[in-house]
Amino acid sequence: MTSDLDILQERHLDALERDYAQILAHHSLDGVLIHSGHPRAHFGDDQEASFAAYGHFVHWTGQAQLAHSWLLVRPGRTPLLYLHAPEDFWHLPAALPDEAWVARFEVERGRFETPPVLPAGRFAVVGDVDAATAQALGAQANPPGLVAALDELRVRKSEYEVACIGEANRCALLGHTAARRCFLEGGAELDIQLAYLGASRQREGELPYANIIGVNAHGGVLHYQHYDRQAPGLRHSLLVDAGHRHRGYCADITRSWAGPDADPAFQPLVDGVTAIKDRLGAALAPGVNFVALQVRMHRELAELLMDQGIVRGSAESAVESGLTRAFCPHGLGHLLGVQVHDVAGRIDAAGRPLPPPETHPALRLTRSLEAGMVVTIEPGFYVIPMLLAPHRGRADVDWGLVERLAGHGGIRIEDNLVVTADGARNLTPSDAG
Amino acid sequence: MTSDLDILQERHLDALERDYAQILAHHSLDGVLIHSGHPRAHFGDDQEASFAAYGHFVHWTGQAQLAHSWLLVRPGRTPLLYLHAPEDFWHLPAALPDEAWVARFEVERGRFETPPVLPAGRFAVVGDVDAATAQALGAQANPPGLVAALDELRVRKSEYEVACIGEANRCALLGHTAARRCFLEGGAELDIQLAYLGASRQREGELPYANIIGVNAHGGVLHYQHYDRQAPGLRHSLLVDAGHRHRGYCADITRSWAGPDADPAFQPLVDGVTAIKDRLGAALAPGVNFVALQVRMHRELAELLMDQGIVRGSAESAVESGLTRAFCPHGLGHLLGVQVHDVAGRIDAAGRPLPPPETHPALRLTRSLEAGMVVTIEPGFYVIPMLLAPHRGRADVDWGLVERLAGHGGIRIEDNLVVTADGARNLTPSDAG
Repeated sequence: MTSDLDILQERHLDALERDYAQILAHHSLDGVLIHSGHPRAHFGDDQEASFAAYGHFVHWTGQAQLAHSWLLVRPGRTPLLYLHAPEDFWHLPAALPDEAWVARFEVERGRFETPPVLPAGRFAVVGDVDAATAQALGAQANPPGLVAALDELRVRKSEYEVACIGEANRCALLGHTAARRCFLEGGAELDIQLAYLGASRQREGELPYANIIGVNAHGGVLHYQHYDRQAPGLRHSLLVDAGHRHRGYCADITRSWAGPDADPAFQPLVDGVTAIKDRLGAALAPGVNFVALQVRMHRELAELLMDQGIVRGSAESAVESGLTRAFCPHGLGHLLGVQVHDVAGRIDAAGRPLPPPETHPALRLTRSLEAGMVVTIEPGFYVIPMLLAPHRGRADVDWGLVERLAGHGGIRIEDNLVVTADGARNLTPSDAG
Repeated sequence: MTSDLDILQERHLDALERDYAQILAHHSLDGVLIHSGHPRAHFGDDQEASFAAYGHFVHWTGQAQLAHSWLLVRPGRTPLLYLHAPEDFWHLPAALPDEAWVARFEVERGRFETPPVLPAGRFAVVGDVDAATAQALGAQANPPGLVAALDELRVRKSEYEVACIGEANRCALLGHTAARRCFLEGGAELDIQLAYLGASRQREGELPYANIIGVNAHGGVLHYQHYDRQAPGLRHSLLVDAGHRHRGYCADITRSWAGPDADPAFQPLVDGVTAIKDRLGAALAPGVNFVALQVRMHRELAELLMDQGIVRGSAESAVESGLTRAFCPHGLGHLLGVQVHDVAGRIDAAGRPLPPPETHPALRLTRSLEAGMVVTIEPGFYVIPMLLAPHRGRADVDWGLVERLAGHGGIRIEDNLVVTADGARNLTPSDAG
């Protein structure tokens, strides 16, 4: 049965073939061999680390876990997948999904720990391949101009890609709902993570990024990397930044929840950050500069802090003095695709670098928006002692209130949106609650 | 409070210091710098793969997740840990556990993505370090003789290490009990894995190896690498090969269970393989050659197959003809320690290679046993079509019965045992059932 997603996938591949042909011609190449990559053993060990396939391989196949495989793309010819699927009783051989692309590709099954032999011609090989391997193939390894052009091709998503990110969002939200329930029932961070995985039907190693499950002060550690085994006695707050993959495409959603022991000042801040997320999301449109949106987030955050009595004085002074950056040191968002931090967010369409402003060094997206870009919008508010220390002498901050909030860590609300011809569409469904 | 484990850890470190001093003197070295290693980003991505620290680093510290850190060992001096714990609001800084070794070591906290400067003298550096880095340190990188001697030091476990493996076993068994319950309640492989993780209180990325959760025929794929999202309609069997780490030390336990839809012939085979595991475990003692035990496993398996009516004729012919190897193509067991397949299983104490026999190429332990070795004992029986194909013409096999069992995949029963002065002790507690 042909699904709507399959029809969209056919169009996605039509466009990819056309665009690759143009890029390869521009680089005077007869084709490109794209390596999936493969997992690496831990040093001095025979056990392997987790793995995610190279983005350009996933762009064609959606297969983020397929290893030791190669895709040969030649303009005007059927894409040829060298599928690593040896006869092996140790592992289940790699199986291809029930998707439209499989019938459209030529597939050669075999052992491909070493690359396939290339036909005569001018080829590049891209992916996790060293210069010696490329030389043995008679190909250039990862020519920078070609890689930059292929990266740029991933910046504007096809309808198919947007649909996949939407489906990943739908599944991720099932996880978020289960995570919140587990927290309210007294689960520890580990239990919340496992509840998330169970409800969103994924294993940890397949996630697009390591889920952040921060109870209480851990919500203020931006990339908090542990899952506590024990639930704390008092439960002030939960921050869950957790994703999903659908056909290789990522969701990246954050929710913050007040716990049974939250300070009364906490929920209004959650509501306030949610409203900032909604307003900034509504402001997305082609031509809007993302650095300007980052600046606007800080102005909105300053107003929220004043509304909630955390800061007195003027919004301007809270922004200019760097106070809002101490309360939210990360970027407003980033490109999203087959990688959670998708490529080319700081490089423009012509390949010129677009570094972030000195005052916002963590901002991963510095471009002006274009239709088809999928971005995250993720304003936040955190009590991070290290960053607040230089501001402690200020009289325009209610430090008593800040201390009451410190045990809650922080708040981040993050949705995924696609920029459309005249605005944007939110791909993250409303919370089931 | 000093725990019994802390007292054992002190003695473990006393012995390590003594042994390292001897080895370093033998290699004319003033010291060795041991690198923990660090996680790697996926190619072309900013997200990192899972990680396990280098075994020799874990041998001293028990810290299998500590990254970018270095341990300097110099005879007669306090071990010096360069602990990578930068001031960082993105991550929770590395924290050291409440264990005896921490007070005994000198600890320097800082940024150690690049190695610390070494004092004057002759040093080696071991771990995931390239030649250029070692040269810049004025040290030799991973000298083979030194690494072989340090590997050999891990072969015979201290009382402390045995106690840690015992505790890891206790926790793993909680997981196995929960896994079985989840299966009987109708859970899919993914649910069984999550139930295991929840009950044993671990996340996937910290496991000593990727758990194998095989329902039905998947139990016959020796290193089955997926977790199905959906439970099958008929549930014949479950095979769970799943571990745990305690202070870096691994458990590696396998259990097989009959499902509600099992063929009546299946449970007697589970009981038979369990009995083989018990008999072979009881045969462990210093001086016993593990290759001979492997051969004995096949004789016992042949007898079980005859008892159960799967094979007729003689046990000798079932073994000699390779039939039992088709039903069980893996090794009887391996060394176990800070790695699940611990080092030096195929190299003797003098550093001579001990390759497995041609007929048992997968055997990871070919040495004669010595007191202090911790080994797995894991006999199995599987229906693997690829391996049975060459035997299909045989009249001494009840192929009808084999077909009835095929949907059950296979059986493996695996315990962890320490070789003692006059026998062995099982570190795997009895199943709670």
